[in-house]
Amino acid sequence: MSTAPAFANTPEPPYYAVIFSSRRTDGDNGYVEMAERMVELAAQQPGFIGFESVRGGDGFGITVSYWMSAESIAAWKADIEHQVAQKIGKSAWYEHYEIRIAKVERAYGKPSV
Amino acid sequence: MSTAPAFANTPEPPYYAVIFSSRRTDGDNGYVEMAERMVELAAQQPGFIGFESVRGGDGFGITVSYWMSAESIAAWKADIEHQVAQKIGKSAWYEHYEIRIAKVERAYGKPSV
Repeated sequence: MSTAPAFANTPEPPYYAVIFSSRRTDGDNGYVEMAERMVELAAQQPGFIGFESVRGGDGFGITVSYWMSAESIAAWKADIEHQVAQKIGKSAWYEHYEIRIAKVERAYGKPSV
Repeated sequence: MSTAPAFANTPEPPYYAVIFSSRRTDGDNGYVEMAERMVELAAQQPGFIGFESVRGGDGFGITVSYWMSAESIAAWKADIEHQVAQKIGKSAWYEHYEIRIAKVERAYGKPSV
């Protein structure tokens, strides 16, 4: 098995992480298409490093996106197209979510073989 | 659907997050039993707040545990029984993993209905 592309290729700390924990509502309602667009759009933002994402069969998921600075996260949150997605997310796609913005201070891993 | 218990009940920031991204190897090899024991043991540690965890069908997973301080994370890492689990994790359960220790500075969510 390849370890790519699930793991984000992050630099030496410090950098920032946005931990987005969510539970989806039932049904797609345009979610998959918009999620793909948001990944595409986020990747174009200044300061974007990468992301890691998993959703279980029960609808609970965690997406962590990594950013160079708090300013780059704020700029992405204020992006017009992203704001539309945030609004639909709140009203239609997510039963509940928690967003935590954190500064990564230390990082280590198991080397890939 | 209930939103509990997938979401961790975290306090007002600041607090700490340990983001553990991993890809499992094939087969159980005692993993499930040890994972349950580690959850039980972590919950007894001073400074432990809670955790959120998802693993997809492809073996990639994200577990985020929340802690009151960097010191409480260091103490948990040094726990003897946890050290045994870390060793087996590296040799048997995980093909690859990344651990990122981050200070949560801001947090907000969608209120539960």
